[in-house]
Amino acid sequence: MDRPTTGHPDIGEPFTEMDLVRPAEEDCPCKEGMFPRASRRQFLRRGGLLTAAATLLPVRAMAADAPAAAAVTDPPWSVPGRVARSDYGIRSPFETVARLATPAGTDALTPLQSLQGIITPSGLHFERHHNGIPNIDPSQHRLIIHGMVDRPMKYSVEDLKRFPSISRTLFIECSGNSGGTARSAAPKTAQAAHGLTSTSEWTGVKLTTLLSEVGVKDGAAWVLAEGSDGALLSRSLPIDKIMDDVFVAYAQNGEAVRPENGYPIRLIVPGWEGNINIKWLRRLKIGDKPFMTREETSKYSDLMTTTGKARQFSWVMEAKSLITFPSGDMRLPGKGFYEITGLAWSGRAPIERVEVTTDGGKTWALASLQEPVLPKAYVRFRYPWHWNGGETVIESRATDQTGYIQPTKAFLTATEGVGPTYHYNGIQSWKISPDGSVVNVLNG
Amino acid sequence: MDRPTTGHPDIGEPFTEMDLVRPAEEDCPCKEGMFPRASRRQFLRRGGLLTAAATLLPVRAMAADAPAAAAVTDPPWSVPGRVARSDYGIRSPFETVARLATPAGTDALTPLQSLQGIITPSGLHFERHHNGIPNIDPSQHRLIIHGMVDRPMKYSVEDLKRFPSISRTLFIECSGNSGGTARSAAPKTAQAAHGLTSTSEWTGVKLTTLLSEVGVKDGAAWVLAEGSDGALLSRSLPIDKIMDDVFVAYAQNGEAVRPENGYPIRLIVPGWEGNINIKWLRRLKIGDKPFMTREETSKYSDLMTTTGKARQFSWVMEAKSLITFPSGDMRLPGKGFYEITGLAWSGRAPIERVEVTTDGGKTWALASLQEPVLPKAYVRFRYPWHWNGGETVIESRATDQTGYIQPTKAFLTATEGVGPTYHYNGIQSWKISPDGSVVNVLNG
Repeated sequence: MDRPTTGHPDIGEPFTEMDLVRPAEEDCPCKEGMFPRASRRQFLRRGGLLTAAATLLPVRAMAADAPAAAAVTDPPWSVPGRVARSDYGIRSPFETVARLATPAGTDALTPLQSLQGIITPSGLHFERHHNGIPNIDPSQHRLIIHGMVDRPMKYSVEDLKRFPSISRTLFIECSGNSGGTARSAAPKTAQAAHGLTSTSEWTGVKLTTLLSEVGVKDGAAWVLAEGSDGALLSRSLPIDKIMDDVFVAYAQNGEAVRPENGYPIRLIVPGWEGNINIKWLRRLKIGDKPFMTREETSKYSDLMTTTGKARQFSWVMEAKSLITFPSGDMRLPGKGFYEITGLAWSGRAPIERVEVTTDGGKTWALASLQEPVLPKAYVRFRYPWHWNGGETVIESRATDQTGYIQPTKAFLTATEGVGPTYHYNGIQSWKISPDGSVVNVLNG
Repeated sequence: MDRPTTGHPDIGEPFTEMDLVRPAEEDCPCKEGMFPRASRRQFLRRGGLLTAAATLLPVRAMAADAPAAAAVTDPPWSVPGRVARSDYGIRSPFETVARLATPAGTDALTPLQSLQGIITPSGLHFERHHNGIPNIDPSQHRLIIHGMVDRPMKYSVEDLKRFPSISRTLFIECSGNSGGTARSAAPKTAQAAHGLTSTSEWTGVKLTTLLSEVGVKDGAAWVLAEGSDGALLSRSLPIDKIMDDVFVAYAQNGEAVRPENGYPIRLIVPGWEGNINIKWLRRLKIGDKPFMTREETSKYSDLMTTTGKARQFSWVMEAKSLITFPSGDMRLPGKGFYEITGLAWSGRAPIERVEVTTDGGKTWALASLQEPVLPKAYVRFRYPWHWNGGETVIESRATDQTGYIQPTKAFLTATEGVGPTYHYNGIQSWKISPDGSVVNVLNG
C-alpha cells in the first residue's frame, strides 16, 4: 500500500480491517453493553485462549510463542487481570532501565537517554555518597541549629513539617559530573558521560524561616552544614545564599526523600554543586568565616593548569545542555524523521535558549523549549530533524538568561587547562554514522 | 530556657552545646581534614559503637533500644553504609504510606494527606480498573488508527516514540471521586474521601500529529478510544477535544507509564474524567457520531433527581479543592502555629484563587498558590494559621480562571439532587475539636 508523503512517512505500518479479528461491534448503539460478557467469552473460546485466561499464563510466555502480528489479532486484553493491584506500585517487569554504578559503588548515574520530560523518577535519581547510605529512623533524627544564634534549637522531622513550606522543581548536579568526558575518557552513553544529575520536585522549609526562629547574631556570615552519614560530609555556605533560596527538604517528588538522597532531610541549595546539598542533614552551625572542611580543601576546588591556581568555592553549576536522543550507543533504524531531544539547565538563571546543530557546528537552529521553563530546573528541548542517512555530528548549546553561553571543550581547555575535573559543562558531540550508530566524540 | 516570642514558639526544643558529644572540631581551619578518620574512630570507641559499626547492626534495632535523645548524642552517622546502593531505588523501610484499596479491588486511592508538592509518586498514583491490569509486552503492543481515515495505520510503541513529543503535568480524577462524600458516607480521611485523583508529568505524542499521519476524512466528528484490558473499556471523544490537547502518553514522571496506569500507552485527555483517559490503549476509530459504548450509557452519565433527567457526556472535571493538612483522622498536638495546606485543580482553566476559612465559613482569606500555577494540574495552596485550641471547622474553596467557584454540597443538592455520584466537587469541611482531633463533617 503506497503512502502519500506526510511529515513522517517512515513511521508505522499500514493497517487493514482484516487485521481485526473482532467485528466492529461498537458501531451498533442499540445494544445494552458494547461488548457483553457472553460474546467476549465466545471470542476467547474461538481464539483458544480461555484456558490461558483461566490459568493466568504470563503474557511474556504467550507473546514469545506468538508471531508479532498476534498482538493485533489476539490482543492481551483477552487475558485479563494479570498484574495484581498493590499498595505501592512497581514498574512493568518489561522495564529494566537502571542506574549505572561506578566500580567503587560510591556513584550511580541516571539513565538520561531513557527518560522523558524533566522529572527524574526517584528510583533513578543519581546517587553519590562518600561513605554509604545511613538507614535513619526519622523519629530519632534531629536537626541542630547552633553557633552564632540567640536560641540554639533542635528540631525533629515532625517539627520541621510544622513550619511554612515551599515546593520547587530543581536539578541537582554533582560537581564531578561529565568529568570523565573532560578528561577525554569518552564514556559511551549519555548516562555514563553525564548521568550525575537529576531533577525532582522538592518540598521543605526555608532556612530564612529556621534562622528567624533561632535568631542570627550580628557578624554571622557563614553556615556549616553537616550530614549524618559515615563521612560526616560538611560544607560551608555564605549566609547570603542561605537567605536567598536554600531550604531543608523532607519530600522528593511528593513522598519522603529517598534514603540515597538524604532521608529523612537534606539541604537543597538551588543551582549549586551537588555535594553542598548536604544529605542526612543533622547540623547547621552559624559562624563568621568559612569552616574550611575537608570537602572544600582537599576536594571540590578546581585546579587551573593554565595559571597553577585553584578556584575555591566554585559553587554554581553553569549553563549546560545535552542531547539525550539520539545519543551514544544507540542505533537509528534508518534515514528519515527523528525528533532530537535533550535537557538544558543552569544554576544561575532560567534557560533562555537552546540551539542545535546537525552538521557538526556549521549551522545552528533554535530548539523549542517545553513550558514551563523553570529557574534552576531541567528544561526539555526538542528539535525536528530529517536525517539524510549521511555521517554527521549533532550538538546542543544552552544559553541562560544571564547571557552565559555553554562553552566548547576547546574554550574550557584554553582558559582553565586540563586540570579541573569539576564543573565541566562543555558542548557534547554525538557522531552518527551511515549505519545509524551513534558514538560519543569529544567536542574540539 | 525561656524562648522569646517568634513566629512559631511552639515548634522544636532548645539545644545546648552539652547535647553534642563531639567538640566543635570544624572551627580549626588548620587541619588537613575536618574530621580525620582516627579521631572519628576514637569517638566511636568512646561511644561504644565500634562493634555496632563493624557488624552493621540495623539502625532500627539500635534506635529502638536507645532513648530519644540518643539520636543527637549518638547520631546514625556513626554506623555507616547500612543501605545498599541499587540500580532502581526504593523507599526507606520506615516509610509505609500506601494506596488504600476498596474491598472489590477495582480501586486504590492516593494518600493525599501524606503527600507534598503536586507530583504524585507513580507508586501511589490512584488505580481504577474495570477488569484487572493486563501485563502487556510492549514489543508486541500496537495502536491501530482506522475508521474514517485515508490511511489506516498501526503503530508500535517505538513508532510512537519517533514522533514529535510533548510533556505536560496534569491531574487525572476519576469521575466517581468523592462520590462517597456526596452520599454522606463521610469517609474518615482525605484519602478515603477524595483519593481517586493524582498528578503526574506525562509525555507522549499529540493526536493532531497522529491524525495528520492517517488523514481524517470529511465528516469525521468523533473518535472511539479502546483499551486492551479485559473490560475492553472504550469511550467516544468529540474530535474538537482531540484536536485541542489530547495525546497518547508512553511516559509518566520520566519513565515508562506504570502497569496500573496503562502500560505501555494510555490516552491523556487533559481535564476530563479519568475513565476517558483510556489505559492500555489499542485502538482509535474515527467516526461521524458518538459510539454509545457501555461506559457512556449504563455508566458515567449523571442522573439529576431534581429533574429526573441524566446528564450525558459530562466530561470536564470542574474546579475543586481540598485541605490535606490538617485533615480527617489526624490529631493536632496542641494549639499554636500550623500551616494549612492542600490541593486545588480544575479541568477547564488554571486556578485563579483558593480561599480558606478557619471559622466554619464566616470569614474567608486568600491562600498562597505555589508557582508555577499550571492549567489542568494540581496547585498546592498554603495558609498560615494560629489555632487557639477551640473547636472550629476549616474549609477551602477554589475558583478557576473561567470564574467558576467550587460549590457547597447544599448548592449541588439543590441543583442536581442526590442522584449523581459522579463529578462531586463540593466544599470539604474538617472539624477540629479542642483535643486536636480532626474529623470529616459534611458541608451543608
